[in-house]
Amino acid sequence: MSQHEDQHRPDEPAVEPPTGQDEGSAATPTVEELDDRWRRAMAELDNQRKRHIRELDQVREAERGRLAAAWLPVVDNLELALSHAEADPSSVVQGVRAVRDLAVQILRDLGYPRHDETDVPFDPARHEVVTVVDEPGTAPGTVVRVLRPGYGDPDRQQLRPAAVAVSRKQE
Amino acid sequence: MSQHEDQHRPDEPAVEPPTGQDEGSAATPTVEELDDRWRRAMAELDNQRKRHIRELDQVREAERGRLAAAWLPVVDNLELALSHAEADPSSVVQGVRAVRDLAVQILRDLGYPRHDETDVPFDPARHEVVTVVDEPGTAPGTVVRVLRPGYGDPDRQQLRPAAVAVSRKQE
Repeated sequence: MSQHEDQHRPDEPAVEPPTGQDEGSAATPTVEELDDRWRRAMAELDNQRKRHIRELDQVREAERGRLAAAWLPVVDNLELALSHAEADPSSVVQGVRAVRDLAVQILRDLGYPRHDETDVPFDPARHEVVTVVDEPGTAPGTVVRVLRPGYGDPDRQQLRPAAVAVSRKQE
Repeated sequence: MSQHEDQHRPDEPAVEPPTGQDEGSAATPTVEELDDRWRRAMAELDNQRKRHIRELDQVREAERGRLAAAWLPVVDNLELALSHAEADPSSVVQGVRAVRDLAVQILRDLGYPRHDETDVPFDPARHEVVTVVDEPGTAPGTVVRVLRPGYGDPDRQQLRPAAVAVSRKQE
């Protein structure tokens, strides 16, 4: 809150680090000096904690703004596709496809790549089984259809697994 | 890093707060005790700083995931609109309109309401003038058309001002 507090960089403690013990008796601190040092360290702990709380809020807000701004082109392009549709209804499909590709790219740039691979073995970390189907000629437990793509990777950050149809065990 | 460190809640300092001075001579700490107290306070300052750096990363990552997940329905609905378009091309316009409304609602829920008001006085904090037009019968400096909506409020959080056409000063 004080000017003093705000001038400190978070990585610079307000109090000096412990000095060596080999400075001779002239440098030996008195009880009063040591008590004062300790009280200042305690005050700095409190200041640091308050700064941290403010910083957490700022970081959260900045991240929210950054991400919301990243999605504005999606909204703009949707409106563009709609306004073109009035003149040429067939153009809207092309426009929507471009918007979909843009949205998928934004998710990839944020660290959530799209996953809609088929013909891969079922993996409980990546796939959510929606239905089991008979698929002759396919190894059992193979992803044969993706009903809803997944985004992100389970070992890093995953928004959701892919919803898939898996081939049945052959009896 | 140590077990000791991780057991502390951030709002609980590892060292005791200063005690009163009126505890009698039996409680007067020695130089060694005071030096030890101070060193523990310094160590806690360092631990607190390290915890905070980790927390900042966690908060940023959690906020990113929360916002990306909020947009997934937009991507899903775009794909739904596209798949319906194959059967009935005219249905896509209706689908896209619903997706646009959903995107605008997500932005509002994130704290960025849409602004596309016309017939309001030009406000440099809310509007970016793209063109000035002759509009007889309109007070000069009035927003007569919104070319691109704005999102958010200037006194809180603004993603961008609205791009507008403003009526010219009458000579």
